[in-house]
Amino acid sequence: MKVGARGYRSIWLAEDGWAVEIIDQTRLPHDFVTRRLETLDEAATAIRDMWVRGAPLIGATAAYGLALALRADASEASLERAAQVLLDTRPTAVNLNWAIDDLLARLRPAAEAARAGLAYARAREICDEDVATNHAIGGHGLGLIRAAWEAAERARPVNLLTHCNAGWLATVDWGTALAPIYLAHDEGIPVHVWVDETRPRNQGAGLTAWELGEHGVAHTVIVDNAGGHLMQRGRVDLCITGTDRTTAAGDVCNKIGTYLKALAAHDNGVPFYVALPGPTIDWTIEDGLAEIPIEERAGAEVAEVTGMTAEGHITSVRITPENSPLGNFAFDVTPARLITGLITERGVCPASREGLLALYPERHNQ
Amino acid sequence: MKVGARGYRSIWLAEDGWAVEIIDQTRLPHDFVTRRLETLDEAATAIRDMWVRGAPLIGATAAYGLALALRADASEASLERAAQVLLDTRPTAVNLNWAIDDLLARLRPAAEAARAGLAYARAREICDEDVATNHAIGGHGLGLIRAAWEAAERARPVNLLTHCNAGWLATVDWGTALAPIYLAHDEGIPVHVWVDETRPRNQGAGLTAWELGEHGVAHTVIVDNAGGHLMQRGRVDLCITGTDRTTAAGDVCNKIGTYLKALAAHDNGVPFYVALPGPTIDWTIEDGLAEIPIEERAGAEVAEVTGMTAEGHITSVRITPENSPLGNFAFDVTPARLITGLITERGVCPASREGLLALYPERHNQ
Repeated sequence: MKVGARGYRSIWLAEDGWAVEIIDQTRLPHDFVTRRLETLDEAATAIRDMWVRGAPLIGATAAYGLALALRADASEASLERAAQVLLDTRPTAVNLNWAIDDLLARLRPAAEAARAGLAYARAREICDEDVATNHAIGGHGLGLIRAAWEAAERARPVNLLTHCNAGWLATVDWGTALAPIYLAHDEGIPVHVWVDETRPRNQGAGLTAWELGEHGVAHTVIVDNAGGHLMQRGRVDLCITGTDRTTAAGDVCNKIGTYLKALAAHDNGVPFYVALPGPTIDWTIEDGLAEIPIEERAGAEVAEVTGMTAEGHITSVRITPENSPLGNFAFDVTPARLITGLITERGVCPASREGLLALYPERHNQ
Repeated sequence: MKVGARGYRSIWLAEDGWAVEIIDQTRLPHDFVTRRLETLDEAATAIRDMWVRGAPLIGATAAYGLALALRADASEASLERAAQVLLDTRPTAVNLNWAIDDLLARLRPAAEAARAGLAYARAREICDEDVATNHAIGGHGLGLIRAAWEAAERARPVNLLTHCNAGWLATVDWGTALAPIYLAHDEGIPVHVWVDETRPRNQGAGLTAWELGEHGVAHTVIVDNAGGHLMQRGRVDLCITGTDRTTAAGDVCNKIGTYLKALAAHDNGVPFYVALPGPTIDWTIEDGLAEIPIEERAGAEVAEVTGMTAEGHITSVRITPENSPLGNFAFDVTPARLITGLITERGVCPASREGLLALYPERHNQ
């Protein structure tokens, strides 16, 4: 999507055709800094230090990391070492594991001389597949936004609300929850997005607001407390969020606070949609509340807020008493009963086993 | 309540018997600074610059401000001027208006020589009345906490959740929502409080956590997004919040985000109580959503977070893109249907016209 006048993906090959470039997302929204990755270790740092984040983008960066390693040394020992270095950067990232396994299976049997080329080609393919998937999600979600616009008799912008960042910065391009919004905007449908700041890490205030603003999409940043009030007052037509994990029954595990917005949407008759690529559905679990453990993270994320001072320095300030205990729960589970529909690359379906199986019939025996 | 080992009110007479002392709440939770007010102008500054906040405390400070003015000059001109100076500090504060009107009615007819003494006496009385009211609220709420403890067979602490600051810092002592918690703690019932940080102004993280910690009450600060998750997992026994405005039908207008917590409590069968002094009920309105306009405040409160740096400086940092529009809605309305009961100085009642009239029968014809 656009940054200033220029179109970007979140990861791309440099003009020389071999180095990899990314956006240092830790500097957003204050500084737009791109970084050039030339080695395996630089790719590993990019993942470990969260210059890149979001499952699809982490997978893509890992794939290119392997390619960079093989460009320097295509031996089997180099391949195995590179895979381990990358896997160790963020041990719980599912897409990272998937991308590394995918490449290892292709590269191990290959001739040494062919490995680097194959790795680059597959990394590129992984990126393109992600873009195609997200664009398809966007197309299906676009229909919902267009319908809301028609329902408002094209008299005013469609008001959307989103939580956290499920935008192009979390993927290779388009994003998941934001893909329908970008497509609607690009098609000329007037949209306005209420952006939850998304405490404690402020991915809404820092990333979603930034990417919407750069692409020219009208938006307003609000605190996480405000969405219920806005829905009560008829100021939200549609909620769309992403999901970290979706069960076979349509329960959604997403950034902490998603459940509260789904409750408010339900209480006010506002449609609540969740956007996701089908491959991220976990067909092995049904009940999100019973079966998904919720990660607890360091309390410092709650106690300290990072931003830019009036003098232009990026720093952290503590907002709590020095000795107060802190609780930091990363995700919550939104039960399927509160979700109007799931937006996938194959279409929109009810958040239920039946709904998902209608789109993914090949899963019938699982 | 306690600060360190010593008991405090939020406003008190200095040892010399005429100056007034308060806590500079803008420095909390980082520094505990008391300030001595000797003149009308100092009292006005304390209100205007929010060294004191919370409706009851603002009223009490205004009353003492008049006393300080009359101590210096008890003429009619001085009285009228002082009233105007104080009214101008925070024009929308209902308790401020009420306290000034109350004192003017008593002082205008009085002999000049008697005025200062009368003002001091009435200011003291206003403070004591507030303390007695809150203590009564606490006593009635204590019954609910004690019952929760018995229901848990005294096997574990009672887990409470509160939003914003309705504690002793917002009143003269005890607070409203926190009064039952302090009484339970003082009685030896083990309690633990989940403290919503309460964006955008962080009164939970900054004030509620501080006052609970100083009094020795177990608590954990969480982001506003977390309460729903905790209630889903059975980790909250009881929610208690304050209210800025309560309608005759029991709708509650309180700090933005209260509604979301009430929805989560309702969805999970967690009792949701609101504590208030009866005189703050607005008997002239019924439907909070239709009849209460919601104040919109400066966007800077959303964009900028104030806290302490690692070097010990209090500073603000911006967390949003420089050009992103900001929405800052101060309150929301929690419909009576989501409220288990109202805790008043006369007892606990259902959040309904019938419930309130049973406690305040003198309002039957209003």
